[in-house]
Amino acid sequence: MKNEFKELIVHGGNKFVLKNAKTNNTGDYHKKQGKDDLAKAKIEMSDLQEKLYADDSSSILILFQAMDAAGKDSAIEHVMSGLNPQGCQVFSFKTPSALEYDHDFLWRHYRALPERGRIGIHNRSHYENVLVCKVHPEYILNEHIPGYANVSDINKKFWSQRYESIRNFEKHLIANGTVILKFFLNVSQEEQKDRFLDRIDDPTKNWKFSSGDLKERALWGKYMDAYEEAINETATKDSPWHIIPADKKWYARLAISEIITDKLKSLNLKFPTLGDAEEAKLDESKTALLSE
Amino acid sequence: MKNEFKELIVHGGNKFVLKNAKTNNTGDYHKKQGKDDLAKAKIEMSDLQEKLYADDSSSILILFQAMDAAGKDSAIEHVMSGLNPQGCQVFSFKTPSALEYDHDFLWRHYRALPERGRIGIHNRSHYENVLVCKVHPEYILNEHIPGYANVSDINKKFWSQRYESIRNFEKHLIANGTVILKFFLNVSQEEQKDRFLDRIDDPTKNWKFSSGDLKERALWGKYMDAYEEAINETATKDSPWHIIPADKKWYARLAISEIITDKLKSLNLKFPTLGDAEEAKLDESKTALLSE
Repeated sequence: MKNEFKELIVHGGNKFVLKNAKTNNTGDYHKKQGKDDLAKAKIEMSDLQEKLYADDSSSILILFQAMDAAGKDSAIEHVMSGLNPQGCQVFSFKTPSALEYDHDFLWRHYRALPERGRIGIHNRSHYENVLVCKVHPEYILNEHIPGYANVSDINKKFWSQRYESIRNFEKHLIANGTVILKFFLNVSQEEQKDRFLDRIDDPTKNWKFSSGDLKERALWGKYMDAYEEAINETATKDSPWHIIPADKKWYARLAISEIITDKLKSLNLKFPTLGDAEEAKLDESKTALLSE
Repeated sequence: MKNEFKELIVHGGNKFVLKNAKTNNTGDYHKKQGKDDLAKAKIEMSDLQEKLYADDSSSILILFQAMDAAGKDSAIEHVMSGLNPQGCQVFSFKTPSALEYDHDFLWRHYRALPERGRIGIHNRSHYENVLVCKVHPEYILNEHIPGYANVSDINKKFWSQRYESIRNFEKHLIANGTVILKFFLNVSQEEQKDRFLDRIDDPTKNWKFSSGDLKERALWGKYMDAYEEAINETATKDSPWHIIPADKKWYARLAISEIITDKLKSLNLKFPTLGDAEEAKLDESKTALLSE
């Protein structure tokens, strides 16, 4: 993998400072070359997915977090569209249901984890519980956790506990064969404004916009603080974050596909090989079919 | 709660030695008194369950582990039969399905967790993964975890990781409002023999016995080692184990019901109270109904 993509990885250790991460970087690429390389990466990813499925051992959890209009949905569409849907499931997490609120905050995400041999894509993820909930701590009250009846109860210790739960959850999954790829699509506030205006002006995009989006936009600074803290608290060597410059959609998609492909390659996936006895049976079967 | 029941709690800290735990203890009780007190505890438990449900905040996870014929099923029947089934669910965990093997070992247990305000009973539990699997490490191979292709790969580090996963899983649940009660029904090998003979001689109990049960019985010592290690590795102040003498079924049931009742009482459950505005609305509704 090229250095410019390696540089997007946050492993923990050194403090990550979000405002130093570029939103409009396109590395060594021009758009044409970027699109060509994305097409190549998609073919490679599709081959690797088949091996992942046949190997039936590791599972891949890919999650996307971002501000509105950063391009999560379109990245999933453009990067993942070459995959075999039989081995790939996308879950989008919206406002929790009453049933989901009746369980701990990880429960709905746990249920949606990918099976061995498969790629699971979480469009928004368990991180919403330390992002949107950090900016709106009143949402936590919907969880009815004993001892947390008022917003003032939701203190630093509460968030520490939540980060610890997330770290332990991911550590457990990794120990049991899940590879986790966490992407933050880092869009600038200016680019979001342009995309919102486009959604308002283009009747085919009106459905993507709601006036509530502006309320969240007004909390931009608080969201950036929540992202920075969450990334610092949960980036580890085995479960790093990837901070993707997202002002140029074509570059974001290229970076995501290169990172996924690189990770899949590192697993050294192979088609299962048969033992001698099974090979002999295959030969017998062939003989039987040919002599029918 | 009486001292004789408090003494059954293993909190971690001091090493727990299983062979020192009595299987045939009946404390200060005779059978008649034990049955009377069980009946009283059941009425109390039922009242507490209604408050738990109305309060809609904590959930209770009660899990039972034991050797065959220790009386898990009948304890669940006799202790829990006074509860309202709407707020109480029993899950029995048998050999994992193909779908369950396609996920990490906690997944099927996570899905079955009780909702807030409810009591969830797990007849066998996530501990099977460090009990029956410890005695039969070849079962782990069914999980297809990368790096664990042979029984010889399943080393001390593997089990440490598994205990850590369990501890972190329970810690997370507790932080989010689940109370966990872990019961080990401690039956003697002699008593198991008598109960097996009874199952063989009594045609109405034949269905409870299979010849495979004797194979597991032959591994008694290995099972005791696995229980002792699992209990020592996972007993904590917030998530203790309860070691229930199980040779006398009536005493085991009494001890379980006393421990559950005591725990529910410690939660200080209350029916939710209405604010002034809501009380005024109740009055309005009453007036409207009476003037119909």
